[in-house]
Amino acid sequence: MSSLHAVIMAGGSGTRFWPASRRDRPKQLLPIAGGVPMIEATVARVLPLCGRDNVWIVTNRAQKKHIARLLLDFPVERILVEPEPRDTAPCIAFATATIAAVDPDATLVVLPADHVIEPHDEFERMLRRGTALCDERTLVTFGVPPTFPATGYGYLELGDPIDAAAPAAAAVRSFREKPDEATARGFLAAGTFRWNSGILAFRAAAMRAAMAEHAPELAEATDRMLEALRGGNAGSVTRAFKRAPKISIDYAVMEKAAHLVAVDCTARWDDVGSFPALARVLPADRHGNHLSLHADAEAIALDAADNVVYGEGKRTIALFGVQGLVVCAVGDAVLVCPKDRADDLKRLVQELTDRGRQDLL
Amino acid sequence: MSSLHAVIMAGGSGTRFWPASRRDRPKQLLPIAGGVPMIEATVARVLPLCGRDNVWIVTNRAQKKHIARLLLDFPVERILVEPEPRDTAPCIAFATATIAAVDPDATLVVLPADHVIEPHDEFERMLRRGTALCDERTLVTFGVPPTFPATGYGYLELGDPIDAAAPAAAAVRSFREKPDEATARGFLAAGTFRWNSGILAFRAAAMRAAMAEHAPELAEATDRMLEALRGGNAGSVTRAFKRAPKISIDYAVMEKAAHLVAVDCTARWDDVGSFPALARVLPADRHGNHLSLHADAEAIALDAADNVVYGEGKRTIALFGVQGLVVCAVGDAVLVCPKDRADDLKRLVQELTDRGRQDLL
Repeated sequence: MSSLHAVIMAGGSGTRFWPASRRDRPKQLLPIAGGVPMIEATVARVLPLCGRDNVWIVTNRAQKKHIARLLLDFPVERILVEPEPRDTAPCIAFATATIAAVDPDATLVVLPADHVIEPHDEFERMLRRGTALCDERTLVTFGVPPTFPATGYGYLELGDPIDAAAPAAAAVRSFREKPDEATARGFLAAGTFRWNSGILAFRAAAMRAAMAEHAPELAEATDRMLEALRGGNAGSVTRAFKRAPKISIDYAVMEKAAHLVAVDCTARWDDVGSFPALARVLPADRHGNHLSLHADAEAIALDAADNVVYGEGKRTIALFGVQGLVVCAVGDAVLVCPKDRADDLKRLVQELTDRGRQDLL
Repeated sequence: MSSLHAVIMAGGSGTRFWPASRRDRPKQLLPIAGGVPMIEATVARVLPLCGRDNVWIVTNRAQKKHIARLLLDFPVERILVEPEPRDTAPCIAFATATIAAVDPDATLVVLPADHVIEPHDEFERMLRRGTALCDERTLVTFGVPPTFPATGYGYLELGDPIDAAAPAAAAVRSFREKPDEATARGFLAAGTFRWNSGILAFRAAAMRAAMAEHAPELAEATDRMLEALRGGNAGSVTRAFKRAPKISIDYAVMEKAAHLVAVDCTARWDDVGSFPALARVLPADRHGNHLSLHADAEAIALDAADNVVYGEGKRTIALFGVQGLVVCAVGDAVLVCPKDRADDLKRLVQELTDRGRQDLL
């Protein structure tokens, strides 16, 4: 029987939580939605499913040391370092080859490090439902039933249920780009669309076969990496990785796969894409203020409602008479921004870049 | 000829600039309206008039050490310490006795430490105009021609000009409490009302005589202090000070004085009563943001207009998309508050007091 491995993708740099997130300290390393860093919560979430020895993290060189420092119990040899950022397809090829080298029959669950998914037991049930469908040819993706007409996510259009008795798993008719508002409303009304969660499950051999069919260069890179890994040749792994096409796994493989099943995400899922999302994943005080405070940070809100506050380090953030703001104080930087502008925070980060202020990023 | 002494009153505690101002670091010690602490600017403002040896500061024990540290050139023996806070009348009695002990014919100019008055040369001219009117019986107060119907200041109602050829000095008909809006509009329209600046000028003997007539207990306290100072008996000074009535100099003496002249304040005057006042005394960027940044603090405003920012210490304050806010980051505290609520900041300070958070005050 195939054993389960979890691959946590932790390569993102993330600018939408500045100044909490910085180049060396992206969102997944922050305790943004609770008491522990998101990557730590993600590891905890997959442990019951895979066990300690089958959890892997893929990240970049700069972040590896931060992750190792944060997750003291996590074996460093299972923190894989991508030779360079080349989107998700080479990342997944690399992880698949690495795991196949030690466990050729492995089933992989691939998931981002920076999502909030709760409760854990429902998450586990949904993953088991998905991995049970993985076989020599079937790839599984997880779709989130939309709760509002989101324009910030890609969608999966569902086809027929694979089993009339289990409607939570269906063939995928098509992948849809982030829609405009009207289209999103249509998707929501239709009931046959799901947000693309970015969570996948597949057997190593099935992914290898799908790559061979739809992205031969990727299959070749995977084969070369597998071969080099078996031979212990790190330089060859790097060369093969760098020759892999820079493309997302959805574009390269999933959208074209003949045997793709979407399983409903039955846990509460949130990608916590920007500060206002904290209002969805954190409890509120009785005036609707959502506070994410860490390492002796505190907040005092007086006549203040509907704000999101993120603070780290010994400091007091006082809100007096304000509504609908994001206030973030971390290190030597403070951000004040309306909630309805926070999705656009990359503009501020771009401005800092343009001014040559890498020291702040 | 009588020589001029300046008495800078620096006893205020000030809660309206929290968290920039704290118990031990009130507004007058802050560089709130420019590059130097307000008290330093105040000393510089009176130096041309009085010379180095005739400038005095009256403060409390806690602040004395901070002032001495801030004004390294200022002789500590001329930083007078009030035995306890007892409003302005005992403070002025104490200063008058102290100066009379060394210079019985002195003319005193008494002024708060935490106002912005510019330009300095016009301020000097106006003080000379006032002190020239001081004689054995005449007390002088300085009145600011109102520029808007302020409800936050007391007013002086002017009587006849003392000299038809010099209409900038007039008898004072009455003192008026802080008016309501309608009354303030009437005052502004009438043209015969002035804001009470709290700046006074008088000869020591004239103040002594006015006290004797209108506030005999104050005159007695002054006499006892003078006697004790001449005898070098600090304990007796303290006892006499503490027996003086706790009252303002306006209530005790000025409002009743038979020979009181109001001289127009012809310099630009601002008491900088709260954060929004910084918009009046600091230059703006091209979006109307007023920045008061010190000791390596910096601010970045993007799509942000009409804000007041005060920062101290190495930190970056980023405003993105916000309007009309006060943002203050000093030490381990950050305040965010709308400009139109900043006058009410004492409520927040009260809240901190109620929560037992003296450590933050």
